[in-house]
Amino acid sequence: MKVPSLALPAANRQLVLRTRPESSPRAEHFASETQPIPVPAMGTFLVRNLFLAVDPVQRGWALNSAVMPLGQPMRALAVGIVIDSRDPAVASGEMVYGFFGWQDFAVATRQDLLYRTADPQAPLPVYAGMLGMPGVTAWLALNLIAPPREGQTVLVSTAAGTVGCLVGQIARRRGARVVGLTGSANKARMCVEQFGYHQAFDYRTCDLDSILAEACPAGVDTFFDNTGGPILDSGMRHMARFGRIIQCGTAATPGWNPPPLGLRNEREILMRALTWTGFVVFDHIDRFPEAIDQLSAMAESGELVCPAEYASGMDGIPEAVEALFLPGSNPPRLFNISDSEIG
Amino acid sequence: MKVPSLALPAANRQLVLRTRPESSPRAEHFASETQPIPVPAMGTFLVRNLFLAVDPVQRGWALNSAVMPLGQPMRALAVGIVIDSRDPAVASGEMVYGFFGWQDFAVATRQDLLYRTADPQAPLPVYAGMLGMPGVTAWLALNLIAPPREGQTVLVSTAAGTVGCLVGQIARRRGARVVGLTGSANKARMCVEQFGYHQAFDYRTCDLDSILAEACPAGVDTFFDNTGGPILDSGMRHMARFGRIIQCGTAATPGWNPPPLGLRNEREILMRALTWTGFVVFDHIDRFPEAIDQLSAMAESGELVCPAEYASGMDGIPEAVEALFLPGSNPPRLFNISDSEIG
Repeated sequence: MKVPSLALPAANRQLVLRTRPESSPRAEHFASETQPIPVPAMGTFLVRNLFLAVDPVQRGWALNSAVMPLGQPMRALAVGIVIDSRDPAVASGEMVYGFFGWQDFAVATRQDLLYRTADPQAPLPVYAGMLGMPGVTAWLALNLIAPPREGQTVLVSTAAGTVGCLVGQIARRRGARVVGLTGSANKARMCVEQFGYHQAFDYRTCDLDSILAEACPAGVDTFFDNTGGPILDSGMRHMARFGRIIQCGTAATPGWNPPPLGLRNEREILMRALTWTGFVVFDHIDRFPEAIDQLSAMAESGELVCPAEYASGMDGIPEAVEALFLPGSNPPRLFNISDSEIG
Repeated sequence: MKVPSLALPAANRQLVLRTRPESSPRAEHFASETQPIPVPAMGTFLVRNLFLAVDPVQRGWALNSAVMPLGQPMRALAVGIVIDSRDPAVASGEMVYGFFGWQDFAVATRQDLLYRTADPQAPLPVYAGMLGMPGVTAWLALNLIAPPREGQTVLVSTAAGTVGCLVGQIARRRGARVVGLTGSANKARMCVEQFGYHQAFDYRTCDLDSILAEACPAGVDTFFDNTGGPILDSGMRHMARFGRIIQCGTAATPGWNPPPLGLRNEREILMRALTWTGFVVFDHIDRFPEAIDQLSAMAESGELVCPAEYASGMDGIPEAVEALFLPGSNPPRLFNISDSEIG
């Protein structure tokens, strides 16, 4: 990547959370504001954001007043460069990835950092994708909960998504039979052609029970589920005994208040002796460096691909987060807000 | 125990499964029959049953035509004595515990055995309770899935049952705070007075959410659930992050066809980073000797108590299995069908 010229904007553009969503966030919940560029206090540093990320996890943040007060820049991951530091352990010029929010400038502390490098040639946008939170989520969830083994069957929902496509590729590399569920025929084709799934299906146009019975004749050993809802209920009924379900998202359910109803699952858990585990990647920040090392090695040897949809500027971000929760849509996930050349 | 006189009955009384239950078995699903005493073939042995067990797991067996054909003696655990052996590895006179069915005599193989001893003084009925399947279930489920630790909170449903009361006692011995849910005020009192629960509640007369919030202020670290249904849904919403749910039974749900609805639980699993595991004790038969050794040591030192409700004869068995699934009832679990003195 070309290091951006540091001709800095004169002010700090921000996308703030204006009103609290009741379920999934929509564009109207956000507003654009302009503030003066902040000055870092002792122990903090100033980050010039280069790329802002749009991630499904932001729905949970937007709903939670404890982590996301109204009127503040939306909590978000971003890639940037340190331009002023009052923390002796962080140097100006370091490239950083962390919780810097949807804005041009952020005052941050070391607790906000997920990754940092002094190498100005590092392929930075990749640190918000394949080597960033999505990649780390895929790698850690699989390795900490259900390391795939030769001959196992791994089922992945949101199979063509940034996390899902990496889960599929990692599981395939380990010798598993990998079956994907996704929200369009086009994405199902991508799963097979680009990500190495053995089979993939558009869940909206197929009979889920029949295709799972056919595609997973020995049952599913590991179900990586990002959706919940009816896809989860179906997948659960095709698990092999002692199978493992990794719950990594609940994209299928628009809201939890009032609590939605679904099939009772305790009998499946019991009779199949399943283990169902929730995975929140931020619980495992200490494992990020190890995961990023492993993912980097796989990426460098060309074993992993991850489609990165980029867009420019800040304007399209609220529409992108809204589209993230519409079935079949595929909005950009990374917004280049400087003149950085993506490399 | 006094070894029973072996004046044998002249025929083999059996309780056979006459019709298939649709949900929980009732007395009318069974019929009494008399057959000639069977003769063991090569590689098998003949057991004279002394105690027949009534267990919740029999509901699942009765519903399943693959494991329980109609017209056959009901699959059941029993304690007996080998009286004729055509298996060189099993001797006449051995005391045995295993799958011998509701009948006076069973032809069995080594695969049917869960426990055997040549000691005629062994407290045999205990091998169908504290040291039998219920005890082994409690011990293995806790130790394999969620070994209790000092200061943790352990919630137990069916807290006064044969399995539940042992879970409570083992968890308390390990330094956990132990909270029980049970189906009557009397049993809640037993939980505290006899089994060492810190608190116990009659779930039928309390507001479950309020009492769980009050009794488990730091959240539940381990929930040993034998019920499923609304108790499970409530318990799940009081779990601490990284908590573990052990699903060991689904007593609260009378039938699964059509599949019943309940609260969607995937968001709790995800946000609390829970792990929910189904436990079927028969998947762990290789660990039984270790569990029985540990339980025996605890029982000998007086650390464990387990209420044993005995009855005599075979006649009351169908009513007992029916009562097992009625809230608040407490039927006998072990039927003495010989003239053995219980010791």
